[in-house]
Amino acid sequence: MISEKMRPLVENNSAVRAMFEEGNRLRALYGADKVYDFSLGNPNVPAPAAVKTAIQEILDTEDPNFVHGYMSNAGFPQARKAVADSLNRRFGTKFHENNIIMTVGAASGLNVALKTLLNPGEEVIVFAPYFLEYGAYVSNYDGKLVVISPNTETFQPNLAEFEEKITAKTRAVIVNTPHNPTGVVYSEETIQKIAEILNRKQEAFGSPIFLISDAPYRELVYEGAVVPYITKYYDNTIVGYSFSKSLSLPGERIGYLVIPDELEDSEAVFAAASIATRVSGAVNAPSLMQLVIEKCIDEKCDVDYYDRNRNALYNGLTELGFDCIKPQGAFYLFVKSPMEDDRAFCEKAKEFNILVVSGASFACPGYVRLAYCVSYETICNSLPAFAELAKACGLKK
Amino acid sequence: MISEKMRPLVENNSAVRAMFEEGNRLRALYGADKVYDFSLGNPNVPAPAAVKTAIQEILDTEDPNFVHGYMSNAGFPQARKAVADSLNRRFGTKFHENNIIMTVGAASGLNVALKTLLNPGEEVIVFAPYFLEYGAYVSNYDGKLVVISPNTETFQPNLAEFEEKITAKTRAVIVNTPHNPTGVVYSEETIQKIAEILNRKQEAFGSPIFLISDAPYRELVYEGAVVPYITKYYDNTIVGYSFSKSLSLPGERIGYLVIPDELEDSEAVFAAASIATRVSGAVNAPSLMQLVIEKCIDEKCDVDYYDRNRNALYNGLTELGFDCIKPQGAFYLFVKSPMEDDRAFCEKAKEFNILVVSGASFACPGYVRLAYCVSYETICNSLPAFAELAKACGLKK
Repeated sequence: MISEKMRPLVENNSAVRAMFEEGNRLRALYGADKVYDFSLGNPNVPAPAAVKTAIQEILDTEDPNFVHGYMSNAGFPQARKAVADSLNRRFGTKFHENNIIMTVGAASGLNVALKTLLNPGEEVIVFAPYFLEYGAYVSNYDGKLVVISPNTETFQPNLAEFEEKITAKTRAVIVNTPHNPTGVVYSEETIQKIAEILNRKQEAFGSPIFLISDAPYRELVYEGAVVPYITKYYDNTIVGYSFSKSLSLPGERIGYLVIPDELEDSEAVFAAASIATRVSGAVNAPSLMQLVIEKCIDEKCDVDYYDRNRNALYNGLTELGFDCIKPQGAFYLFVKSPMEDDRAFCEKAKEFNILVVSGASFACPGYVRLAYCVSYETICNSLPAFAELAKACGLKK
Repeated sequence: MISEKMRPLVENNSAVRAMFEEGNRLRALYGADKVYDFSLGNPNVPAPAAVKTAIQEILDTEDPNFVHGYMSNAGFPQARKAVADSLNRRFGTKFHENNIIMTVGAASGLNVALKTLLNPGEEVIVFAPYFLEYGAYVSNYDGKLVVISPNTETFQPNLAEFEEKITAKTRAVIVNTPHNPTGVVYSEETIQKIAEILNRKQEAFGSPIFLISDAPYRELVYEGAVVPYITKYYDNTIVGYSFSKSLSLPGERIGYLVIPDELEDSEAVFAAASIATRVSGAVNAPSLMQLVIEKCIDEKCDVDYYDRNRNALYNGLTELGFDCIKPQGAFYLFVKSPMEDDRAFCEKAKEFNILVVSGASFACPGYVRLAYCVSYETICNSLPAFAELAKACGLKK
């Protein structure tokens, strides 16, 4: 019954979600506090109190037909202006409300961008490891995904291979920094080099190549790490953002796209992206949440909580002999599998009630992802189980 | 810069929206109370007070990580159960939570259904007049739209032509009742005949044909009109619903799909539709609003307000000599254009500060749509302007 295009998606239904079901099974069997579930990127730090206050204020002072009503497909102008102003204050950019489209989270934003720009057969480059859903998004518009192999030394992108794989068919490149699943922040040098390469290739092929910055983890950085704002380095950049992590609102589906004036044919792209938002079925980002964003634009969830988790898990695991890069952002550790087959290692970890996701689920076998958006107690309690797992894998302290 | 598929959509950007801009221009020029804007289907009756109460209760009693967090892509089980139970109470159906997928409004729900079922080149039948966005939705999945010409006597569907136009390539049929733009409710006889035809054709061609019921106006009916629940008449039915109208929440993007057990391969279709919800970028319906629906499932906006508008506008216009069917549902009048060219009539109406939408925007030239989801005062105040318009068009009382 299922359409041909959906069939492979049904077959490969996200390993992350399958793991979620496994977690439920183990919790039922052993009790929730005896299962160490690092499989899901679902924020556990609550939304700032300002979100609740904002909702109450909006409901108490505004007309319900305004709060819950239609607006232009791009979103409420006042919400878009609040986003533009905040970016300008923080990054020295010069955005205005007509550079911003409010979206149903970053996932819908990326789909809107691809629908607006991509023709069948055109290529979209991603850097492994990468969020596998990018493949589904590109396939939604009959594009072709081109994967650059990982640089497992630094997990900065492999730029030599990137340059080689750009062709006349390359329409877009997706970067994700701070990065899921490694927690790496792309350095300013990296961004500058990507921009140089793309400018050279645009000139060589005589057609634009769009850099799509998927940046939902931008506010989740540690030890003062700086995340370069990519529109300042490369004109044909579109930014996709979500408040899922910074305000812990993943279920609310609220984010935005930035389409800068510098982008080629910017006004036409903005108009088309607004229409793409409508005809994709999203129509507009949820209205009450847009008004919440306007009021809470400078709020942030408790990033220190994630930082404490990061240090506890990184220190605990490396002391046990596990090998991984210390993340500068997001809420993931990407740990080298001590067994050759990372899927076998995931199975082994389950014997100790530890749930982690195979690197193969991010096109980077040989590694596993641990999401540390869990309670601090879970991390502390998990360390003895990790110690047993390390022993079972023959790791030495 | 724009993708080839988006280009025609940009060129034909919804006449309804263009009219909205024209309304703003006239309001700035003449004052809001001197412009009679019947162009937009944006509910003007506020959401029931229970919606605000529900939001406050949820925020006061539930954990924010639950309220604003991810859930399964199909939605919170308790919201889906509330929807199923409500349908069962009202229509004698036997749905359970695994028949219901919460969606980002009906527009996203229809897209999810089409993405799940439709292959490139397959045909989707619609009955004129119809909501032109259906064409964009079908094109999203490279399907082919097949339009059945209108029956302008009754605006019930033209079933003889329908039967003729079903082919081996027909994958789905979209019906919309109560109907935009005519306000007609498809009779039980109509639904039974559609089911008979489809069952015969399914057998003849040996492949399923899905009936997609787009039913956001179901609760907006007058004089006790009965809207048959289509799953009871035809097994391969999928229902798309939105709370945009019944709870006046159009900006919040909250609705659902019903995928009944009777549908062929129902469980597989449900699983695929859940994945389609995710990979389309919607991911899930907005979480807080799902919880609101659970609490407000039996609430309804003030339908009597629309009914008073309906009577005032219908009586006013027919007394002036305009010709139209009295609507049984939704909040639209579909009026025969007194000028041969309905677009010219729309322009003529603007001279009297009256904004209506051309029937051509619903594939039914010769008519215009008036949305009476406006204040009662607007309707009363507009009647003298309509009287002048009638005179200018040579209509006699």
